[in-house]
Amino acid sequence: MARIRLGMVGGGRDAFIGGVHRIAARIDDRFELVAGAFSSTPEKARASAADLGVAQDRAYGDFKEMAKREARLKTGIEAVAVVTPNHMHYPVAREFLKRGIHVICDKPLTSTLADAKKLAKAADSSNALFVLTHNYTGYPMVRQAREMIANGDLGTIRLVQVEYAQDWLSEKLEDTGQKQAGWRTDPARSGAGGSTGDIGTHAFNLASFVTGLKLDSLCADLDAFVEGRELDDNGHVLMRYEGGAKGMLWCSQVAPGNENALRLRVYGSEGGLEWAQEDPNYLWHTRLGEPKRLLTRGGAGAGSAAARATRIPAGHPEGYLEGFATIYSEAARAIEARREDTPVPGDVVFPDIKDGVAGVAFVTACVDSSRRGGAWVRLERYAG
Amino acid sequence: MARIRLGMVGGGRDAFIGGVHRIAARIDDRFELVAGAFSSTPEKARASAADLGVAQDRAYGDFKEMAKREARLKTGIEAVAVVTPNHMHYPVAREFLKRGIHVICDKPLTSTLADAKKLAKAADSSNALFVLTHNYTGYPMVRQAREMIANGDLGTIRLVQVEYAQDWLSEKLEDTGQKQAGWRTDPARSGAGGSTGDIGTHAFNLASFVTGLKLDSLCADLDAFVEGRELDDNGHVLMRYEGGAKGMLWCSQVAPGNENALRLRVYGSEGGLEWAQEDPNYLWHTRLGEPKRLLTRGGAGAGSAAARATRIPAGHPEGYLEGFATIYSEAARAIEARREDTPVPGDVVFPDIKDGVAGVAFVTACVDSSRRGGAWVRLERYAG
Amino acid sequence: MARIRLGMVGGGRDAFIGGVHRIAARIDDRFELVAGAFSSTPEKARASAADLGVAQDRAYGDFKEMAKREARLKTGIEAVAVVTPNHMHYPVAREFLKRGIHVICDKPLTSTLADAKKLAKAADSSNALFVLTHNYTGYPMVRQAREMIANGDLGTIRLVQVEYAQDWLSEKLEDTGQKQAGWRTDPARSGAGGSTGDIGTHAFNLASFVTGLKLDSLCADLDAFVEGRELDDNGHVLMRYEGGAKGMLWCSQVAPGNENALRLRVYGSEGGLEWAQEDPNYLWHTRLGEPKRLLTRGGAGAGSAAARATRIPAGHPEGYLEGFATIYSEAARAIEARREDTPVPGDVVFPDIKDGVAGVAFVTACVDSSRRGGAWVRLERYAG
Amino acid sequence: MARIRLGMVGGGRDAFIGGVHRIAARIDDRFELVAGAFSSTPEKARASAADLGVAQDRAYGDFKEMAKREARLKTGIEAVAVVTPNHMHYPVAREFLKRGIHVICDKPLTSTLADAKKLAKAADSSNALFVLTHNYTGYPMVRQAREMIANGDLGTIRLVQVEYAQDWLSEKLEDTGQKQAGWRTDPARSGAGGSTGDIGTHAFNLASFVTGLKLDSLCADLDAFVEGRELDDNGHVLMRYEGGAKGMLWCSQVAPGNENALRLRVYGSEGGLEWAQEDPNYLWHTRLGEPKRLLTRGGAGAGSAAARATRIPAGHPEGYLEGFATIYSEAARAIEARREDTPVPGDVVFPDIKDGVAGVAFVTACVDSSRRGGAWVRLERYAG
Repeated sequence: MARIRLGMVGGGRDAFIGGVHRIAARIDDRFELVAGAFSSTPEKARASAADLGVAQDRAYGDFKEMAKREARLKTGIEAVAVVTPNHMHYPVAREFLKRGIHVICDKPLTSTLADAKKLAKAADSSNALFVLTHNYTGYPMVRQAREMIANGDLGTIRLVQVEYAQDWLSEKLEDTGQKQAGWRTDPARSGAGGSTGDIGTHAFNLASFVTGLKLDSLCADLDAFVEGRELDDNGHVLMRYEGGAKGMLWCSQVAPGNENALRLRVYGSEGGLEWAQEDPNYLWHTRLGEPKRLLTRGGAGAGSAAARATRIPAGHPEGYLEGFATIYSEAARAIEARREDTPVPGDVVFPDIKDGVAGVAFVTACVDSSRRGGAWVRLERYAG
Repeated sequence: MARIRLGMVGGGRDAFIGGVHRIAARIDDRFELVAGAFSSTPEKARASAADLGVAQDRAYGDFKEMAKREARLKTGIEAVAVVTPNHMHYPVAREFLKRGIHVICDKPLTSTLADAKKLAKAADSSNALFVLTHNYTGYPMVRQAREMIANGDLGTIRLVQVEYAQDWLSEKLEDTGQKQAGWRTDPARSGAGGSTGDIGTHAFNLASFVTGLKLDSLCADLDAFVEGRELDDNGHVLMRYEGGAKGMLWCSQVAPGNENALRLRVYGSEGGLEWAQEDPNYLWHTRLGEPKRLLTRGGAGAGSAAARATRIPAGHPEGYLEGFATIYSEAARAIEARREDTPVPGDVVFPDIKDGVAGVAFVTACVDSSRRGGAWVRLERYAG
Repeated sequence: MARIRLGMVGGGRDAFIGGVHRIAARIDDRFELVAGAFSSTPEKARASAADLGVAQDRAYGDFKEMAKREARLKTGIEAVAVVTPNHMHYPVAREFLKRGIHVICDKPLTSTLADAKKLAKAADSSNALFVLTHNYTGYPMVRQAREMIANGDLGTIRLVQVEYAQDWLSEKLEDTGQKQAGWRTDPARSGAGGSTGDIGTHAFNLASFVTGLKLDSLCADLDAFVEGRELDDNGHVLMRYEGGAKGMLWCSQVAPGNENALRLRVYGSEGGLEWAQEDPNYLWHTRLGEPKRLLTRGGAGAGSAAARATRIPAGHPEGYLEGFATIYSEAARAIEARREDTPVPGDVVFPDIKDGVAGVAFVTACVDSSRRGGAWVRLERYAG
Repeated sequence: MARIRLGMVGGGRDAFIGGVHRIAARIDDRFELVAGAFSSTPEKARASAADLGVAQDRAYGDFKEMAKREARLKTGIEAVAVVTPNHMHYPVAREFLKRGIHVICDKPLTSTLADAKKLAKAADSSNALFVLTHNYTGYPMVRQAREMIANGDLGTIRLVQVEYAQDWLSEKLEDTGQKQAGWRTDPARSGAGGSTGDIGTHAFNLASFVTGLKLDSLCADLDAFVEGRELDDNGHVLMRYEGGAKGMLWCSQVAPGNENALRLRVYGSEGGLEWAQEDPNYLWHTRLGEPKRLLTRGGAGAGSAAARATRIPAGHPEGYLEGFATIYSEAARAIEARREDTPVPGDVVFPDIKDGVAGVAFVTACVDSSRRGGAWVRLERYAG
């Protein structure tokens, strides 16, 4: 089937996540990058386009212009990747959604809960798809964990221990001009959550994706340990899920020795699972009363959900980019289904607009709870 | 120097921790077990004494009788190990303290905060020593961590992530007649905390021992996941330390795949440390901006505090019993100092009565917080 | 710069390594697959071309026809990936080399030493490049290890411990019709070495690449443990390098619990390095007398050689496909240099025809040694 | 039962292994140290006795005197621990054996094969027991591995990969006056093997103990990498077992980053096992075609052989000293059986004089093979 024509907003020179999206889109060869508003500075936008092999006449300095023109082109883009700082997700995505162009948007959904809800409306009223790149859900062993829990392998879920620790903001990196640190610690561009928004949402999303549990309430204690920092760089959160499971979530960007340490542990009445993003090809599984088993991507014991997200045999490690590519490939399958006017296959499970709203609600609830001294807050107040 | 004459209360046949204390007392050859009230059933007490090579005339069926008679003997015991269920720690310890016999007592200090405070008074007014066997503080790499933090190697401490997870109570083991499960889930013998009292106190103590931080307040969410269980089998706790450091503590006895997974991670402005009890000869250290280093017991980079607790070279693993033995050997050094009427050496750092009261206060505060829906409570209310 | 026009011989439906080459060629976006002889059955060749988005008029059923026609096309392929079973590497590569088309060839170079030497002549007399995909050399931490040893960080190298263990041939899989097992255990298609040729060459190459050492002599004990198997499925090899370093190499396809366990350890007078392919983002480094350090891809301590092979930040694991892609991207840089008639950059270090001959000489020497009862043999007899 | 009266030859101040034997003898409380010739210098011998609480009238400056006198005493020693350098094992052990005193002797058995055979004769003609402290056989998970292999859990054994790597002799430590390095690198005191005798024998013994295989022939390449060193500091050995299994053994004392890295991997037609001494509470087990399982000491899946060597529950790590203690406790059980004139229990499996002779034969064969350029030699030539 012909490759999907993809555009991109953001992701010019110096950006990090734009490049990741482009590789992810290429790995399984289902997309072709043909247009972009890679920067709001026209010259930079054109230079980035040249770097990326995108034709100059489809290099835009303005995302609105891009949306309008691409929508009119006969072979205009079918989907757009939105890889700007958070505060731009809403205005950008809206322009494409309203023209029926599918949106593949980076996380968190938006910088405010109000924007999130408006974007949800825009997505609901569009017939385009909305894909949120909580990329960690694309790892094969994350899919394996989700399948096992859905199958009841752990019995009733009691405990969710999730954490996402980094150390790159242990000092005031934002004062050095480092671009990533700049916008991620800036309330105007990131929203009210710092580490909670940047990585806490990933952790929250991962736990929800794997367990299928819905959060009822939380109690959060957020800190900005680095003096003068405006947004939290550490978050401690207790969680109560509907149905009685309990959880702890820790996110931190000031934990020296942690590069990108997203870890999930889930315990139920009949077993436990443990997974760590930095060693993603492994999943520890314990059936209560039996020895621990080390399940591997592609190895004995890996089921069909993992297999669908697996490219190469066990022992040949797949990594972050492949996990990300799985989100893109599922987006492609959904888009192809739309092309053909057929239903999206049931095994396409990428995070979507609802997950995005839930994530922003989570961050907002954390910030509120912490401002109120660590009071318990109900999620229904936010996610509505 | 002559071995210290040791007695024991509790620890008869079927008990677990009594045997551990006895091995720990033997490893460094500074104690000699010469008397005991190993059981409250006289025949059992005598049978246990015979098993253990203790003379029948020093096998007691009653701890009070033992305290009285040993105090009068010319070569009566100099110290007693108290290894009963929690609720008996206070009455037993008191009898020996008031006769000037040193007490080496298992944790938690007592089953109630009232008892803890009474015992503290008894200890304060006795000239005997009181040693609390928070044995995990005896591991060489725990000593190493403590020394490094005291030396400022981590800068200002920001974060304490501590957890103690087990799985042996994932089902209702107490209904099967298993003795350990029986008393540990019984409020009358354990006190108001289940997992919090049994293992949460260890985690709390370890974090305090290593960091030197004092807890200001906490917020706890405790659960008894196993139906019909009277005491918590899982605890989620947020912690605020004096001075601004924050922490999370998780204790659980219902986490399948965790045997005895006590883990401590501490992060400061200049570095991080990570230690796991099940692999106790390793300590991960990261200086901010440098690669992680794996410090080993006896290896390059291990300092004098670890060296004092080390028996054999690096790569020859020491374990739980040796860590426990270090507490006994420090007790011996303190007792020998008393014999000689010299000050206890400054490098003797075993947990004592104050740590015991702090531990019971911690458990009590957790239970209170949880009963009040997870409200924040100040520790000063409890530890007084 | 315009993408390099790539063709492929082999790699049709059911093949494994062809798909890997294609992803590897896409990841860094420097190649475009435009032609192929994916199968020797014309219909299959066309079907595979259709699967892969290759135009039907450039789907060949015969590699000679492909070589001839592509060489005449104005925008014919600039490079060809040869991903057939081993015995076809020589005849296929020769056709393209003699027409000046660059060859990217899978390992081992050929199925016989005679073929290897003929191919070396063909490569030497062509002005096309020859790239051998010993892909494990493309891992960033392998590059890091090589750079550190070249810098003298380990002092004089004394020991090379390398192993490559798998378990997928523990039973007689070739009797089940499994295609991969079929040709890999067939002397006619694989050559005289089984596990030695399939994975032992990788191990040998990796050790040579990282240390820069040249093998002087070896003693090998090869076995076919599975009854009726014609080629070795296990090899034990002692190695003596020029200059006095010694080594051990173990390759096995009958070691249950090993998926793709290629591991290299190198020890010198001043330090040691340890790397494992299944956890490729880590490199353990010990300076004699200091604690072990865990170097990570993209992390503190990683140098410029690793950086050149790195796409995304530390903690975001890269895997097998990215390591493979690094070989392709270096091939692209070399090909681009040829386009521009400039020298190939000095930091392009992909394995080439000489490494290929050395690898086949290694396998041949192992087989000879083993046949002679495990006698020591000199490599100069083979590599000439 | 009354404790066994134990004497010791060697093990005075500055010695390492003597202290280990004493702790090992104490842990399970079945021995009482009552006599010793701790040094050949009478004052040192007396000083060491005083340190150790041994009465001065049983502190000997001469082992012959000790043997004679203790044999005449009514409550003389029942067993003696021989912890001298290797060359003294034979003369010392002989004196005690011929007086019917049980011998617990450190490894390797002797410094020469001739001595080993003479000692074997002495042991055979004595009615005393001879216990060789290949202590690594005392680890619970080593016992587990042995039991599983004996039960056929691995099918037919094909491969034995064993290694013992250290780094403490990477420089010429023997020139600094360090006592351990001094005698271990001295042919007069150690014998013809350096690393092969000191640690290679442990590795060889461990593999034999666990698999039950008998070595047929070997090919060894030994080196003294440190200039001026008289004995090998590295050994590479290929092994052929009776019945067709093959093995590799690596021993090294010049591998930076290895503290005491004894590792054993065994692979059979139906499964594999992997164990590492530095993490001794774990045993990896793979059944062919199933996920890896992590068996733990005391955990689910551990059988009766491990249970007999286990003191405390899973997750409470036992270490080197406990493994060593298991050898002592088995010696005690055997000695107690002799006291009672009953057969030694069948589950007592400590290494004995035959294992000792096999170990010295192994070292001698390695040295011979290496001197002959790495020729294959048959073990029957040595072990006779």
